[in-house]
Amino acid sequence: MIKLDFKKSGGLIPAIAQDYKSGEILMLAYMNPAALNATLSTGKATYYSRSRQTLWVKGETSGKLQLVKEIRIDCDDDTVLLKVEQLGEAACHTGHRSCFFKKIEDGVIRIVGEPVFDPKEVYK
Amino acid sequence: MIKLDFKKSGGLIPAIAQDYKSGEILMLAYMNPAALNATLSTGKATYYSRSRQTLWVKGETSGKLQLVKEIRIDCDDDTVLLKVEQLGEAACHTGHRSCFFKKIEDGVIRIVGEPVFDPKEVYK
Repeated sequence: MIKLDFKKSGGLIPAIAQDYKSGEILMLAYMNPAALNATLSTGKATYYSRSRQTLWVKGETSGKLQLVKEIRIDCDDDTVLLKVEQLGEAACHTGHRSCFFKKIEDGVIRIVGEPVFDPKEVYK
Repeated sequence: MIKLDFKKSGGLIPAIAQDYKSGEILMLAYMNPAALNATLSTGKATYYSRSRQTLWVKGETSGKLQLVKEIRIDCDDDTVLLKVEQLGEAACHTGHRSCFFKKIEDGVIRIVGEPVFDPKEVYK
């Protein structure tokens, strides 16, 4: 049984999803112990949705699952790093490959890159 | 003025530090608005220390500063990604280059890699 420090942050710890080949950071979401256990047992990235307050198998609606290739944890056991294979090209609900498609530059926020799918087509 | 969603998580948002060349994830820490502003104005990664409850210029004690090369934010403006040049080889206070030096494998936690400095020599 893997025990992480969920108490420090009130029950949820951040989990970073990183493309296992390119190293690109795809997204950050949160896990409770059940989400971590589901991720470990199924091999599919499973988070805890703060807005819906329920377990959330990433891609269960869109089909854009994340297959977990490796799991790292940090020095003080309160952050998870998932190295994943992102199915369906993109992790972000906006259609961008990565959720980190906004860049702070010269004091303003600029969009970087183009969406790879149309959210209206995927989330009907 | 860059406005992020600090409210959702009670005032602090996670900030990922990633090596700007290799893509390696070095650490995750937290920012409040003052930490973000200090990072933007100085170019040195500045976080909010939850344990010490104060602004924390990463590397101020060890000399292992993080020079910020690029700042990304995510789709819903509640996570920061810093692409940094890590001075002094390592980000982790344990002496490892990355804080994510533990791997979950076959249900147990294994250490990956060796420290690149001796913490006893650095934090006197």
